[in-house]
Amino acid sequence: MQNITVALDAMGGDFGPRVTVPAAVQALSHFPELKVILIGDQSQITSQLSSLGFQTNSRLSIQHTDRVISNSEKPSLALRNSQGSSMGTAIELVADNQADACVSCGNTGALMALSRFKLKLLPGIERPALISALPTASGGRTWMLDLGANVSSDADSLFQFAVMGSALAEQYLQRPPRVAILNIGAEEIKGNDLVKRCAEMLSQTKSVNFVGYIEGNQLLHDAADVVVCDGFVGNVCLKACEGTAQIFIDKLKSHMMASSIKGWIARKLLSSLFNELKTLNPDQYNGASLLGLRGIVIKSHGSADVDAVINAIGEALHEVQRQVPNRISDRLEAVLLERHY
Amino acid sequence: MQNITVALDAMGGDFGPRVTVPAAVQALSHFPELKVILIGDQSQITSQLSSLGFQTNSRLSIQHTDRVISNSEKPSLALRNSQGSSMGTAIELVADNQADACVSCGNTGALMALSRFKLKLLPGIERPALISALPTASGGRTWMLDLGANVSSDADSLFQFAVMGSALAEQYLQRPPRVAILNIGAEEIKGNDLVKRCAEMLSQTKSVNFVGYIEGNQLLHDAADVVVCDGFVGNVCLKACEGTAQIFIDKLKSHMMASSIKGWIARKLLSSLFNELKTLNPDQYNGASLLGLRGIVIKSHGSADVDAVINAIGEALHEVQRQVPNRISDRLEAVLLERHY
Repeated sequence: MQNITVALDAMGGDFGPRVTVPAAVQALSHFPELKVILIGDQSQITSQLSSLGFQTNSRLSIQHTDRVISNSEKPSLALRNSQGSSMGTAIELVADNQADACVSCGNTGALMALSRFKLKLLPGIERPALISALPTASGGRTWMLDLGANVSSDADSLFQFAVMGSALAEQYLQRPPRVAILNIGAEEIKGNDLVKRCAEMLSQTKSVNFVGYIEGNQLLHDAADVVVCDGFVGNVCLKACEGTAQIFIDKLKSHMMASSIKGWIARKLLSSLFNELKTLNPDQYNGASLLGLRGIVIKSHGSADVDAVINAIGEALHEVQRQVPNRISDRLEAVLLERHY
Repeated sequence: MQNITVALDAMGGDFGPRVTVPAAVQALSHFPELKVILIGDQSQITSQLSSLGFQTNSRLSIQHTDRVISNSEKPSLALRNSQGSSMGTAIELVADNQADACVSCGNTGALMALSRFKLKLLPGIERPALISALPTASGGRTWMLDLGANVSSDADSLFQFAVMGSALAEQYLQRPPRVAILNIGAEEIKGNDLVKRCAEMLSQTKSVNFVGYIEGNQLLHDAADVVVCDGFVGNVCLKACEGTAQIFIDKLKSHMMASSIKGWIARKLLSSLFNELKTLNPDQYNGASLLGLRGIVIKSHGSADVDAVINAIGEALHEVQRQVPNRISDRLEAVLLERHY
């Protein structure tokens, strides 16, 4: 079994080492092939490790840094001041081949800018994209991109998102994924110039299995394996799904928590439904991936808890094992060849 | 009590007169001030009326037309061929002051193009917008626009949407509505040029109570009374909420429908929860309004059932009673005055 080293930005996110350190420790027992480098303030990390009765060893090391990129820091500023930051150092370890992937719960814009600068883009890619898997009502999943790495995109970028998403999803599905564009209607005449131009490009590309447009209400209905959209649209849309799901879960929960006899019966009766519904919250899959880079970078929610960070580390392992950046390069080459000959 | 005449496009939508005719008949008994003109194929409408044991009277008349604008018809084509169509005629009745409002379940793009052409825009408005109220978790509602009348917008249009939405919501809330812009983050640095420019304009306008950005997951959480966004974003986002809500409602329903003793208890126990959750589906409020026109035009879902069309007719009545186009004009004038002096 090949060891896989993950550089974990221990300081990022709403909770920093209080969440990232226990997540790293638990991830080591979940994934026997895993090694973790915890990057951040040595004393804070050591203190968290001690409180867990744990210390550094051959699979868990600390790399000290004394700067944290805040959530409100502009990407341009983060880029200038990345030297010695936990996030910047995590990405550098990947660039220097000292780690196979990096995971951060920190500032998305900064993570994207630093990754792009330090790791560089794959040939043929103009912009990286943030992708994540959403659960579907039938128990499957649908990958969606871009989820906000870019605030605006042109048709070429959207096309590249489709190629990258398709390459990633195929590694999981082991079949050509159905790729759709998110639009305001399913009919061909619907939409803005951006989606129309991208649809035209995709329908002429044999190496992508383009199935047309889908609407927002089809997102969790297994209508496609990969859904492509502009980063602004993807971000608000995913969060809209998450917000709606959370309201329904909360309402059901408060019904089950009632102290009456009714509450007691509801708890007995509804626990399986409750667990099923929880798995339908798109929020459950933590670990969005930044695609298009010469390296693997996983973005965890800022508010992620220990389990969620473990999921993000698991996603990093999967992508290393499947060599996702290479698979994307292969697919891009196939598309280029198809266009030239 | 003043009579209010609604011109109902009887042919639009997925079901045509099978839904619109019973909806009109029931709406007449719901709303004593209502008069309805059913516009469409006379024989189909008459046959539906007969099957309900009903006939035309002083409150219910038929205006025969023999053309229907299909859902796949491009707005530009619909515009050229609107003569003698049920939708075109319904809008003309409003333009000619023979009706106070029109309601259609038909093609949104065509409804918007025909309304704009036949009714004209209010002074100071460059594009109409589609607005609808979404239910919130706390039992309130949030108005959202644009929901897809436009596939792209500039900052001036978005600003006008904010002014129009604010004027409409104030008629219901009787206080200055909190107006927010939908964005990919709540911080000032987040977002694309469009939302940033609109935010700048709104923060300089005293006659709109601008409260900043909200994210997609805050949509149903009563974070604002009016949420402003581009029509593409609004459409996919609203549908994403609807699709997610529907999945949760369906899962709960199938749990309650189980034929076992568990199903029986679940039905007894969960009916109140089920009804509460149903009211949280944004889909429940049928009747989006086209704002910015010199007349009242209500767009119903194409798949609306009888109750939903009655709701859309109810929305038309409310807007007539509140003279919404005049309120929007007043507000626009106030904004213009503020900018000039």
